[in-house]
Amino acid sequence: MELISQQRCFDGWLKRYRHYSDVCNSDMIFAIYLPPQAETQSVPVLYWLSGLTCTDENFTQKAGAQRVASELGMAIVCPDTSPRNTGIPGEADDINIGVAASFYVNATQEPWKKHYQMYDYIVDELPALVNQHFPITDRCSISGHSMGGHGAITIALRNPGKYCSVSALAPACHPAGTEHGRLRYTSYLGPDESTWVPYDSSLLVAQVPEEGRLPLLVDQGEDDEMLGSLQPKVLQAACEQSGYPLTLRMHPGYDHGYYFVSTFIEEHLRYHAAALASDLSKNYY
Amino acid sequence: MELISQQRCFDGWLKRYRHYSDVCNSDMIFAIYLPPQAETQSVPVLYWLSGLTCTDENFTQKAGAQRVASELGMAIVCPDTSPRNTGIPGEADDINIGVAASFYVNATQEPWKKHYQMYDYIVDELPALVNQHFPITDRCSISGHSMGGHGAITIALRNPGKYCSVSALAPACHPAGTEHGRLRYTSYLGPDESTWVPYDSSLLVAQVPEEGRLPLLVDQGEDDEMLGSLQPKVLQAACEQSGYPLTLRMHPGYDHGYYFVSTFIEEHLRYHAAALASDLSKNYY
Repeated sequence: MELISQQRCFDGWLKRYRHYSDVCNSDMIFAIYLPPQAETQSVPVLYWLSGLTCTDENFTQKAGAQRVASELGMAIVCPDTSPRNTGIPGEADDINIGVAASFYVNATQEPWKKHYQMYDYIVDELPALVNQHFPITDRCSISGHSMGGHGAITIALRNPGKYCSVSALAPACHPAGTEHGRLRYTSYLGPDESTWVPYDSSLLVAQVPEEGRLPLLVDQGEDDEMLGSLQPKVLQAACEQSGYPLTLRMHPGYDHGYYFVSTFIEEHLRYHAAALASDLSKNYY
Repeated sequence: MELISQQRCFDGWLKRYRHYSDVCNSDMIFAIYLPPQAETQSVPVLYWLSGLTCTDENFTQKAGAQRVASELGMAIVCPDTSPRNTGIPGEADDINIGVAASFYVNATQEPWKKHYQMYDYIVDELPALVNQHFPITDRCSISGHSMGGHGAITIALRNPGKYCSVSALAPACHPAGTEHGRLRYTSYLGPDESTWVPYDSSLLVAQVPEEGRLPLLVDQGEDDEMLGSLQPKVLQAACEQSGYPLTLRMHPGYDHGYYFVSTFIEEHLRYHAAALASDLSKNYY
């Protein structure tokens, strides 16, 4: 694991690393914010998944999350949004697929399947690496924005008991029901739509067993220019139908960008901190 | 004045405008954050000057200032760091001079003098425009980072009574004493070094009359990679010699970037808010 950069921030450290991912067969980059508390004790960790076109740096530079994480004593891990420079021809040519558009799936189709194993990377490989190298407890939560909100929710729904809490800002709620999403999943997963279900929050909620239901917290701007493809109302209807607990908050005037994320991120961090601290029978410290 | 974009942020609005500047003979861009209080009353305003290579957006995207400004009921105006697209040959080719490197001077030399009148733009033209178009009181303060910290301090020192408070993060304290600074001022102002004095904080402090002395608040990272050219200790010595009030706070581990700015901006905003509110005989509301 190679340290790319480190910067002091709110009395903690923001560090960026490059490492070789065995599941993605590729170098990967991630950032970790270590709050000042991590100098003397282990801290819980929030995994933050970013959106289409992003790197790990959009969130660390624009969300203003380090201030709150420093106060709360919470680490934040920000993975990149896909492998890069894998040698797949044209991997960065289409904004909707390939580089920075992984949608956090395990691709099964050529040319993606050798490298685009982001689900396994986020769920297993990266946490194992983080736990090995940093003073992290086994308490973790997950959140994200847009494509990353989709990633956070689908990953939490499929791994009951793994995360203490999940939330999302303007998540892509029903990729299998949008034009771009259908093209993307056909390319990554093939034409058999049953293979898309594990990567679609609105189709997944009904499948989660009662005892594994982690409540969903979703914030969404009403003036979001992507609202038509995010489809929060489809997720809301699916949750209502299956009785899945969802808090969907619509915010007049807010769009899809990081000024929206920065406005509401503090509430999300406090929400996760409360969940991470709530079950002291687990290894909190 | 043309509205380029507007985004909801912490219940207020961040708006970017393009307008023609008579003093710069050029289009100029600025951003203004209007806190929610501005919907029902006039609010005081902080002018924020950014550093070398920046646009108006570095601060609005990375500092996290809108959260605090929203709470405090303070507008923030972020001008661009120079004219752009003026037609001056090679204006954007050198990181140290021209585009995004104005150093907030009134240039007297060719080819810059027709357009690079940033001192007059910041001190007079932009505030007149802002006061005309927005619900702003006549109470204002000024702050900035790096080259912008230099701009904020020199402008405050030269205009006693105009600003309620001044502060800077990692300011360039003595441009006339650095190699790049000497080249730059020769190009903008000519070889007569007496013309450089109005644009050098360390040379200016001794000239401010006793009754016009606004205290200086400066934060500086000890691991700032630019420390050698910023020269805060030269400013400190000049202030000590002339008895000028300076609070210089050195911060171990912090570098020159926006993670440093974001860590300390809240203290600066609260400092300015207190000054803006302190003299109720002036038109606070």
